[in-house]
Amino acid sequence: MEPMNQVEILIVEDNPHDAEMALRALKKNNVSNQVLVVNDGEEALDFVFARGKFAGREKKFRPKIILLDLKLPKIDGLQVLKEIKSNPETKIIPVIMLTSSKEETDMVRSYQLGVNSYIVKPVDFSKFVEAVRDLGFYWLLLNQQPR
Amino acid sequence: MEPMNQVEILIVEDNPHDAEMALRALKKNNVSNQVLVVNDGEEALDFVFARGKFAGREKKFRPKIILLDLKLPKIDGLQVLKEIKSNPETKIIPVIMLTSSKEETDMVRSYQLGVNSYIVKPVDFSKFVEAVRDLGFYWLLLNQQPR
Repeated sequence: MEPMNQVEILIVEDNPHDAEMALRALKKNNVSNQVLVVNDGEEALDFVFARGKFAGREKKFRPKIILLDLKLPKIDGLQVLKEIKSNPETKIIPVIMLTSSKEETDMVRSYQLGVNSYIVKPVDFSKFVEAVRDLGFYWLLLNQQPR
Repeated sequence: MEPMNQVEILIVEDNPHDAEMALRALKKNNVSNQVLVVNDGEEALDFVFARGKFAGREKKFRPKIILLDLKLPKIDGLQVLKEIKSNPETKIIPVIMLTSSKEETDMVRSYQLGVNSYIVKPVDFSKFVEAVRDLGFYWLLLNQQPR
C-alpha cells in the first residue's frame, strides 16, 4: 500500500520544534508509526481532500486523527477545521486542536466549527510529551470510528 | 449555588446497571462528584435547555461533558445529539457517545451529527471502569473548553 494511504495521524504544525516533539512523543510511546507532518493549512487540506501534491492519494483512506495548530501559514487552522467539518465524508475524522492559545474566542470558535477536542500545549517539555501520549492513547485506542 | 448548576457530567443512560457502573467509576477515581444521571432523551434535552423539570436551572452553567447512550426511551440518542449540536450555545458541550453499539451506521451518523467522541462500552466490568476513568480523565483534565 502507498505510504500516503497508511497515515494514521496527520500533524499540522508550522513550528518544527513542536512538530518534532509531538512526533517523538507518539513514537516513543508506540502510539503510532504512521505519522505525517505538514506545515501549513493548504497542505493539510490538500492531504485531506487528496489534491495538489497529494492528488495521487486514495481519499477513502482517512487519517484516524488530525492534530491541528491554530495559527498556520497560508490557510489558518480555523479555516482548515471549517472545511473538514463542512464535508460529510471528512467530518468523520476526529480533529484535535493542539495549540498554545488559551483564548476563549479561539475555543468557542473551534467548538462552534465542530472541533472534536481542544488541547492547550503544555509549555513544559515533559508535560507536552505526556499530553501527546495521553491524547494519542485516547483517540487511537479508546475512541472508535468507522472504518 | 443550586446543585443543578454545578453538574459537571451529565450521564444519559436508561440502563440502571450501566449508569451505576459509570457513576462508581467516576467517583472511585475522584474524577468528579458532580454527576447527574437522567434516564431518557427528553430529560437530557430538558436539562441541557433548562426547561420542563429543569426549568429553574440557569442555562449558562453548562455541564463539562455529556455521556450519551444511543438507544434511549422517548427521544433517542441521535436526536438528542442533533439538537445539542444544532444550537450554537450548546454545541460547545463535548458529547461522548457511550454505547454498546459497534454498528458502522451508528458511528457514521454520530460523527456526521457532530459527536465529539464515540466509545464502545466494554462488556467486562473492570474494562468498563477503566474506560470511564480514562475518558473522564481525558475530558475533564486534558481537554479545554470555554468557561
